[in-house]
Amino acid sequence: MELRLALLGCGNVGHALLEMVTEKEHDLLRRFDLRLSFTGGLTRSAGGWVAPEGLTARQVLSSGWPLGELPTGSVPFAGDGVAFAAACPADALVELTSLRPQTGEPAISHVRAALASGRHVVTANKGPIAHAYRDLRELAAEHGVSLRFESTVLDGTPIFNLADFTLPVTRILGFRGPLNSTSNFVLSQMMAGASVEDGVTAAQRAGVAEADPSYDLDGWDASVKAVVLANVLMDADLRPADVKRLKLGAQAMRTAVAALKPRATLKQMVEATRGADGHVEASVRLVPLPPGDAFAHLAGMETGLRLRTDTMGELTLIEGEGGPGQTAFGVLTDLITIVRGLAPSVRRGPPSGGLGR
Amino acid sequence: MELRLALLGCGNVGHALLEMVTEKEHDLLRRFDLRLSFTGGLTRSAGGWVAPEGLTARQVLSSGWPLGELPTGSVPFAGDGVAFAAACPADALVELTSLRPQTGEPAISHVRAALASGRHVVTANKGPIAHAYRDLRELAAEHGVSLRFESTVLDGTPIFNLADFTLPVTRILGFRGPLNSTSNFVLSQMMAGASVEDGVTAAQRAGVAEADPSYDLDGWDASVKAVVLANVLMDADLRPADVKRLKLGAQAMRTAVAALKPRATLKQMVEATRGADGHVEASVRLVPLPPGDAFAHLAGMETGLRLRTDTMGELTLIEGEGGPGQTAFGVLTDLITIVRGLAPSVRRGPPSGGLGR
Repeated sequence: MELRLALLGCGNVGHALLEMVTEKEHDLLRRFDLRLSFTGGLTRSAGGWVAPEGLTARQVLSSGWPLGELPTGSVPFAGDGVAFAAACPADALVELTSLRPQTGEPAISHVRAALASGRHVVTANKGPIAHAYRDLRELAAEHGVSLRFESTVLDGTPIFNLADFTLPVTRILGFRGPLNSTSNFVLSQMMAGASVEDGVTAAQRAGVAEADPSYDLDGWDASVKAVVLANVLMDADLRPADVKRLKLGAQAMRTAVAALKPRATLKQMVEATRGADGHVEASVRLVPLPPGDAFAHLAGMETGLRLRTDTMGELTLIEGEGGPGQTAFGVLTDLITIVRGLAPSVRRGPPSGGLGR
Repeated sequence: MELRLALLGCGNVGHALLEMVTEKEHDLLRRFDLRLSFTGGLTRSAGGWVAPEGLTARQVLSSGWPLGELPTGSVPFAGDGVAFAAACPADALVELTSLRPQTGEPAISHVRAALASGRHVVTANKGPIAHAYRDLRELAAEHGVSLRFESTVLDGTPIFNLADFTLPVTRILGFRGPLNSTSNFVLSQMMAGASVEDGVTAAQRAGVAEADPSYDLDGWDASVKAVVLANVLMDADLRPADVKRLKLGAQAMRTAVAALKPRATLKQMVEATRGADGHVEASVRLVPLPPGDAFAHLAGMETGLRLRTDTMGELTLIEGEGGPGQTAFGVLTDLITIVRGLAPSVRRGPPSGGLGR
C-alpha cells in the first residue's frame, strides 16, 4: 500500500526522515508492503508545496527543498500550517515544527486540523501531547485515525510503543530518569571543574544547547517531558506548570556541584509517582546519584528512563547518543505502526484527501 | 474470546502464571476481550489432566495442583508430554518444562507436536529456540500458528517483542550484556572478598544457583542465551557449542578477580557481532568493566542487554531483580500478542482441539 505524507516542518529531523525513508525503501516494501510518498511540505521559512501524485523521499531530497527549489512536480501552497494540515492530499500528517513549551501552539492546531479532517498524525513535537493529549486522543478516536508520538521523549527509543505492545496489562507505577541531556552535559563539565558558563558554551559548541540555555537548565524541557510521560503512561492530566521544579538553574547547579560528596554524580532528574490519593506527582530536581546508580554513569549525551511497573518490577532503558536520526526513526516507526494496523483507532484504507485522488 | 491453554510443566513459573492470570482477569477481559482458560496440565511428578470445558486459573490454583489433587472437573491424562501437546483440547501450548541445554529435548518435541497439530506455542524454555528455531519457525508458519518465547532471555523484559513491534526495519548489528546472573552474583561476592565456594554457597542460599553451579560459571547458560538472541535477532544459525567460551569457570574467576584493577568490575559478559564475512560470532567471557560502563553497576541479580542497531545506535535494557513473576509476565505477554493478532502466522479463530469441542 501507499501512505501519503504531509511534512509540516522540515529541519534536521525532517531531513533525516527523508534520508531514512530513502535508505529503507526496499525494506519497507518487502517487510510491510509499504510505499511512503510525500504529497506536500511546508516550513515557515521555505514556504509550502503540494504534489497530489506523490513524490518519493529521494525526489524531495534531490530538489534541495527546503533550502533549494520547490520539488519538481509540485505546486506552491500559500496557506498556513493549519490550512496545510487540513487540505494537503495526504493520509498522515508528519508534524515536525518547533516546540513552544508554554502553550504547545501552533502545533496543537496543526494536529487538530489533521485529525479532524480524517488524517493520521505522527508528531515529534512534545507540545500537543503535553498540553492537549486527552482532547487530541479523543478527536483521533472520533475520526477513526491514529495519533502517535514516540519521538517526543528520548528520541525514537521505544517508550510509548514499548508500553503499548510489549507491556500489556501492566500498570506504570512511576518513572525516573535524566531526561534533559543539555543539563546533564553541562553538569558533567562542571564536575570536571568548568564553570556553568563554560559548560553551556561547550554544550552550544557541541550543538546540544540552545542560544538561551535557561529552558534546559531551569527544568522546563524536563517538565514538558515529564508531563508527556505521566499523561500517557500513567493517565495523569498534568500541565508543565504542575511539575515541581526544585533547586534548578545556574546558581543551584553551582551550589550542588560544590556540595557534592566524593564519588557521587550530579544529574538533573525527572521523577513521577502516584500519591496515596491517586494523583500523579512529577518533579524535576538536581539529584546526587550514588555510584551504584546506573544513571550516574551515562556518558555525554546519553539519556535514560526507569519505569516502575506492577508486572516486571523495574525496567530501565538507556539511549546511546541521540540525534535527528534517532528522532526520525521514531517517526518512521510510528508510521509503520499505523500501517500495520497496530495503533488504536486505525481506520483501514486511506481517506481521499482534500485535493484530488 | 476465549483462549484455551495447555500447561506443560508447572513449577514456580507456572504457579506465578496462574496467579498473574487470576490477578489480571479483569484487565484481560476489559482491554483485550480475552478469557484465558486452562484445559489441561501435565508435570513429570504430578501427572496430567485434561478438562475440555476449561478451568479458570483460580480453579486450578485452588485445587492445589500440581502439589495437591487433580483439579475438580478434570480427568487424568496418562500420556507423556508429546502426547499431551498433540492431544490436549487447547488453542495454545504453554511449555514450561526444565531446560536440557545440550539437546533442547524433550521440549523441542513438545513444541513440534503442538505446532504440527495446529496449536500456538508460548515457551519460556530456551532449548527449542537455541537448538531448533528455524525448523520450528517454519513449522509454525506452515500450520498458520505462532511461536513466541519472550521469557527465554531476561525473563519477561521485552527483547523479542521490542524487536518485532518497536524496531521495525532495524538491523541488529550486535549485542552484549551480563546475561548470567548467577555468575555475576558470585563475582560480586568475590570482589567483596569471598572465595568462589563461598560465593556459590551465597548464591544457592539466595535461591539463584543450581546445586551444580558449573552450568552457570562455565558459561553454558550464557551460551544458550547468546544463541537464542543471535538466531532470532540477527538471523544466525548457531548452536550453543558454537559460542566461544573463554577463560571461564572457578579457576579463571579467581585469577581474573586477583588481577582486577582498582575501580574496575568483573562480569561474565555475552557478546555477539557480525564478522566481515557476514557470519555472526558469539562469545562468553570474563570482562573487567571500567567504571563508566553502566553494566558495571548492576546490583545483585540485575541483568541487561545492549543492542547495537543501524537505526537507533545503541539501546540498552536493564531488568531489575527478576524471578518467576517476571518470567510468567513474559509468557502472558506472548499469549496476549497472539490473541491481538500481532504475532506472525496467526490463524484467526481457535482450532477445534483434539478432544471435544
